[in-house]
Amino acid sequence: MTTTRALIAKTPTSAFSKENIERRAVGPEDVRIEIAFSGICHSDIHQARNEWFDGIFPMVPGHEIAGHVVEVGNRVTKFKVGDRAGVGTFVDSCNECEPCQAGQENYCLKGNVQTYNGREYDGTPTMGGYSREVVVKAKYALHIPEAIDLAESAPLLCAGITVYSPLAHWGAGPGKKVAILGMGGLGHIAVKMAVAMGAEVYVLGHSTSKREEALGYGAKDYLSIGDEKTFEILGGKLDFIVNATSANIDVNQLLSLLKVDGSLVFVGLPPEQQSFGAFSIVPQRRSIAGSNTGGIEETQAMLDFCAKHGIGSSIELVDATNVADIDKAWDRVVASDVRYRFVIDASTI
Amino acid sequence: MTTTRALIAKTPTSAFSKENIERRAVGPEDVRIEIAFSGICHSDIHQARNEWFDGIFPMVPGHEIAGHVVEVGNRVTKFKVGDRAGVGTFVDSCNECEPCQAGQENYCLKGNVQTYNGREYDGTPTMGGYSREVVVKAKYALHIPEAIDLAESAPLLCAGITVYSPLAHWGAGPGKKVAILGMGGLGHIAVKMAVAMGAEVYVLGHSTSKREEALGYGAKDYLSIGDEKTFEILGGKLDFIVNATSANIDVNQLLSLLKVDGSLVFVGLPPEQQSFGAFSIVPQRRSIAGSNTGGIEETQAMLDFCAKHGIGSSIELVDATNVADIDKAWDRVVASDVRYRFVIDASTI
Repeated sequence: MTTTRALIAKTPTSAFSKENIERRAVGPEDVRIEIAFSGICHSDIHQARNEWFDGIFPMVPGHEIAGHVVEVGNRVTKFKVGDRAGVGTFVDSCNECEPCQAGQENYCLKGNVQTYNGREYDGTPTMGGYSREVVVKAKYALHIPEAIDLAESAPLLCAGITVYSPLAHWGAGPGKKVAILGMGGLGHIAVKMAVAMGAEVYVLGHSTSKREEALGYGAKDYLSIGDEKTFEILGGKLDFIVNATSANIDVNQLLSLLKVDGSLVFVGLPPEQQSFGAFSIVPQRRSIAGSNTGGIEETQAMLDFCAKHGIGSSIELVDATNVADIDKAWDRVVASDVRYRFVIDASTI
Repeated sequence: MTTTRALIAKTPTSAFSKENIERRAVGPEDVRIEIAFSGICHSDIHQARNEWFDGIFPMVPGHEIAGHVVEVGNRVTKFKVGDRAGVGTFVDSCNECEPCQAGQENYCLKGNVQTYNGREYDGTPTMGGYSREVVVKAKYALHIPEAIDLAESAPLLCAGITVYSPLAHWGAGPGKKVAILGMGGLGHIAVKMAVAMGAEVYVLGHSTSKREEALGYGAKDYLSIGDEKTFEILGGKLDFIVNATSANIDVNQLLSLLKVDGSLVFVGLPPEQQSFGAFSIVPQRRSIAGSNTGGIEETQAMLDFCAKHGIGSSIELVDATNVADIDKAWDRVVASDVRYRFVIDASTI
């Protein structure tokens, strides 16, 4: 076992404290990663505050981990000491079910092992990336190409793959019209990716305050869903929409923007039930779908795609020297006051 | 113009009366069909009673028409006098939009011309199949193979294609587990078709009163959605579900039966908004979708498929000599008291 510092939420209402935790000894299949950067994901907040379900406490959040390998198990060939390495939302899976066999460990039927607020299959609680080091199975670590700034790569491990997978699955590419609803932590990466894939990309938001940035990322237009004209302009025109928010949305209104066979794809998890009318899906064979991160192979493909196209997350770096600054960063995430993703400088933990 | 008898609903609250109506003279592209049988579709009732939207009155319902060609226009080569012919839910479309060009006139972007309670593109109200004769463009009429009993073929023109199209689109076939929710007018045909396609078919209903019939049609099992065990048995097992009801359903409960990438497909139109949680679709990339009848080419393929596999609708024939019997039949449709589809003997109109 090794001892490492981490930011700990002791209860769902606690501020962070900085304390030592134990990481397991590096097993034959494991790598130990010195964490350089750890992204702050909105789901960290939902989980640490029990907004989705009762969490496992004390909790060390963080599933957007970027760093360097400092130790490898004796059977590991995938990494060597000094390599860049990333860890996303899960660190193990059953490897036996149909999705695992198909490389879709994100849809593991046994339930994969979440990077934090989960349990290893032996019952040990998992602790995430708000920490100086982590030990994971090499199979579940990713190679981060040198072409991506390491700090900007961290959010790709959750936010990035969460939007890349549906963009790829629903076929963003030349000739396709795609909208991204909500240009926040997930959405701004989605815009960059969909543009790089060759799609005609529209950004939908409540205000148009981020319009110039969206156009800078290559979006064709940025339109407000509060403006009736948006629905005249785009009505029936879109191949699919990635809903990159966790807000309550007017599902029927958004469905009206879709072509025949178009899909409205949720990647966030609004806690409230959403409603729709059959008249919004039956007459044009539209769909409402969900998508949840991606498998290890697809996550690697996403990182390689980002390296090729010069895509990283747009970030604000946070220093954890004063631990209260992390609490403040969380408050700003809740207030949607970040462009576009906070990343913790893990060397300051 | 020709005069023909029809069953007319004069207002949304009127009982039927039997009166003469005019059909247009047969144009160069038209056929005149002597109607032998006309199916009663639940949507006839919704429309004649203004349950979906304000209808066009007086109304002659009926979009499940089976009969024989008695006159052909001088440019028609598709049919000759004496041929069996059917008419489904629409009788014209724009022929220019992307779906029309792809043979999906059912998704015509201009809006196709509904067989009744619609308007021709020149504004003339359309009158449906509760009648002795109809005049339609030959392009929108179907060949009904001799291998299908003509009375049993009528409901295939709406109920049949409405379930065939999603079964084909979502890939019912060997190795697939498919459930049909609701074994009524649509559902019982869906069961027969999905079995013929080679899928493992489950029927879901409120009671199990139709269990023996479902097994007789080749279903693997008939399970009640009121029984918790159903969700233990089928949880996460189904490739897709065709919701052949127009009832309020527990969407989340049904989604729980689906595999990764599974779909819950609505073909009926419940008037109430339906609700779902993002947690029911995101973690397994599930979808909620809709499907609306089929194009002319697909409808012909469906009829040929039914002929090959000996599939017709199970019907109760209704005599329209006493017009009040049609009102009674409607009451029984509303009460789900028909196995499984009423068909009017049009010679008695």
